[in-house]
Amino acid sequence: MKEELIESLGKAKVSQSESERYRHSRDESSHPFIEPDFVVFPENVEDVVKVLRLANEHVVPVTPYGAGSGLEGQAIPINKGISLNFDRMNKVIEFSPEDLMITVEPGITRLQLNEYVNKHGLYFPIDPGADASIGGMVATNASGTTAVRYGSMRDQVLDLEVVLANGTVIHTGSKAKKSSSGYHLNGLITGSEGTLGVITKVTVKLHGIPEKVIAARCTFQTPGECAEAAQVVLASGIQVLRMELVDAESIKQVNEYGNYSFPEEHSLFFEFAGAPNIVEEEATVVEELMKELGCNNWERANSSKERADLWKARHEMAYAFKHIKGKVSTGSDSCVPISKLAEMVVFGRELLEQSGLIGGVFGHVGDGNFHTIAMYDPNDPVEVEKAEYTNEQIAMKAINLGGTCTGEHGVGLGKRKYQVTEHGDALELMKSMKTLMDPKGILNPGKIFY
Amino acid sequence: MKEELIESLGKAKVSQSESERYRHSRDESSHPFIEPDFVVFPENVEDVVKVLRLANEHVVPVTPYGAGSGLEGQAIPINKGISLNFDRMNKVIEFSPEDLMITVEPGITRLQLNEYVNKHGLYFPIDPGADASIGGMVATNASGTTAVRYGSMRDQVLDLEVVLANGTVIHTGSKAKKSSSGYHLNGLITGSEGTLGVITKVTVKLHGIPEKVIAARCTFQTPGECAEAAQVVLASGIQVLRMELVDAESIKQVNEYGNYSFPEEHSLFFEFAGAPNIVEEEATVVEELMKELGCNNWERANSSKERADLWKARHEMAYAFKHIKGKVSTGSDSCVPISKLAEMVVFGRELLEQSGLIGGVFGHVGDGNFHTIAMYDPNDPVEVEKAEYTNEQIAMKAINLGGTCTGEHGVGLGKRKYQVTEHGDALELMKSMKTLMDPKGILNPGKIFY
Repeated sequence: MKEELIESLGKAKVSQSESERYRHSRDESSHPFIEPDFVVFPENVEDVVKVLRLANEHVVPVTPYGAGSGLEGQAIPINKGISLNFDRMNKVIEFSPEDLMITVEPGITRLQLNEYVNKHGLYFPIDPGADASIGGMVATNASGTTAVRYGSMRDQVLDLEVVLANGTVIHTGSKAKKSSSGYHLNGLITGSEGTLGVITKVTVKLHGIPEKVIAARCTFQTPGECAEAAQVVLASGIQVLRMELVDAESIKQVNEYGNYSFPEEHSLFFEFAGAPNIVEEEATVVEELMKELGCNNWERANSSKERADLWKARHEMAYAFKHIKGKVSTGSDSCVPISKLAEMVVFGRELLEQSGLIGGVFGHVGDGNFHTIAMYDPNDPVEVEKAEYTNEQIAMKAINLGGTCTGEHGVGLGKRKYQVTEHGDALELMKSMKTLMDPKGILNPGKIFY
Repeated sequence: MKEELIESLGKAKVSQSESERYRHSRDESSHPFIEPDFVVFPENVEDVVKVLRLANEHVVPVTPYGAGSGLEGQAIPINKGISLNFDRMNKVIEFSPEDLMITVEPGITRLQLNEYVNKHGLYFPIDPGADASIGGMVATNASGTTAVRYGSMRDQVLDLEVVLANGTVIHTGSKAKKSSSGYHLNGLITGSEGTLGVITKVTVKLHGIPEKVIAARCTFQTPGECAEAAQVVLASGIQVLRMELVDAESIKQVNEYGNYSFPEEHSLFFEFAGAPNIVEEEATVVEELMKELGCNNWERANSSKERADLWKARHEMAYAFKHIKGKVSTGSDSCVPISKLAEMVVFGRELLEQSGLIGGVFGHVGDGNFHTIAMYDPNDPVEVEKAEYTNEQIAMKAINLGGTCTGEHGVGLGKRKYQVTEHGDALELMKSMKTLMDPKGILNPGKIFY
């Protein structure tokens, strides 16, 4: 296989070095590292076609690798084979500012894309936190803090160029803003985690940079009250840009880690964005609503520096936990109907208390999507079991309440066990689609399904 | 087959009457009428399962029928067999106002649904014009005048209950607002026109009724100027509720038909909706923008009566054309990137002039989606050919410009011929998915694909 890869692609695009194999053995999750046999660096769609044809012929697994920032092990080549790294496919192919649209290669990262379009007054608002690659964000249907306003990746994708397992290149959509033509392959490939095809081009919507942004923060007595307050904001019809819950324990970690003195209470963070008059009005209305609900510590920031300070506790939270010595983090990513969110958030907080693990509850409460983070010692079987139990209880309760085990991280390795419960007989259909499109099972095997 | 249907469902749910067969032979398109052998009126999902099991066993086509308001022949049972009428499955199953969400049976119409939820301050905004059934709207991924603000049906669907060809019942999503779990079957079934499964329940998002609505209208010298003006509004970031182009010829037809005296010029219609202060601001900004671009006849209306009058020329346009004696209508439904819209609109207007047919150009210019309507004598082969030629030229040009042959009507019968050009190799994948999910080809055969 190695000889054929080198013969087909040239030596400079194939690596078996220990350092590259190690780098491609992992992502940001706590799943065990597994090294690929080869790392291949395609430079264009033709290279990807060559790799897939060879891999399909020899039945060798192919696992796409973007920025390695995934949280469910999607980039880990658990059956070894080829890790397909998109670092060299990170160019802008076509930028059409008047159509609020851009076509890029999948290896470009979110911040690189924004750097490119920001000077034209446009931005790509989907923000999963990490500087993920656009291809990876499509593959996992990523979202994050701005989904309450802009939706998920799937809502941004207009067209994808995709190489199928047999090397056929297709386009899944068009450059029209809406379409009723044929089956919706855009939506099918988005979120398919590299199991149905390899993405080689991405056309997404762009949005105008809001003229003004106002940030605000307030606190409540319980995480449940925060969730209920978020529900009131949604019902008001005000289109917040971001609305995030961070619980008291998480704020405490941030204070310890960064030497801050934020009020260690359950907090709701807001951003309003748009035309100046309109955002002023929005911030004022939300302030009134929150105060009617009995919030404390309402604070508001206008300048970009003030906003950054105000949101610091949210931004630094994950890092604060990760600096606890001797522990690694695991987390949940469930999403439920808004009316069930308060119940879920309280349940998550209680589970963490019961487990005795250090952990936090936070999330994108405008979508009903929230996370728990639990810190455990990977060498202590009791802690491992407690962390896993917490995640499982949350995922199963979310599914029972009509929600999903994963709002934005994807299934990858860790959420496979919930798929039967969540999808029932639809799971068999999904598996048969996988077999149809990848009969030899070379495309990111072991992800989504066992 | 008749005996088995009656034995399984009871006599009251199966009809072979001439009147029912005639009613189910057609939709609102000009495609030839074809009568089904039977009309079946299921009352619940179990009935649909029984019908599909029998049909699959006997290899009898099943064509779902909602309100019969489709525009591409999707409800016409071109291979005869069973027309599955959803009149009796029109109930609300679960209404969750606090989640801005409702689950309904597919036979409920858009206006029935709105009547149900309006008293709670909520509405279902997707408006294709006709009082279509929700199931039909999902099946065709319908949209209409409000898509510029709310997107298409696919953007509203959270979950579907679907009966597959073999009688298996699946759910395609969940009640969570976003999900990265499994393949996106919601998006796949939405827009699949009854070719992959039969929809038996629909869970959709609802939205708060805007506190205030302002309507406005202005005119420009050319349809191209209207399209360019629409692009300027989009670029401003103002979220209009509706933004519609109606060309001078269409206004002339409305004036003749309704005895009005609207200015017979190329017109742009607007609606702004939201909190009072915000919509006032929006209407004022757009007025300034339009006047800078040299519009004429700017008029604005606040009360609901005034708004209805102002928009009359838009609302009555299709009917005005349809009252031309001895002619029937056909039309195009292409959607292109916004920057190509002016070119397309001018092209459409020129084609109509060249054809000598009476016709109009209008559409949802905020989405890049526009329609031509051409009136022809179905008994005059020359006129038939001219009408068809016009449609074809528009569809092919839209595809060449990176757009689609159908923005909202669906493929049905009339757009099948463009599918290879538009989708290329992806069409083979779509066909293989159809074969996977419906191996005997009983589900609405002859739609989307030949």
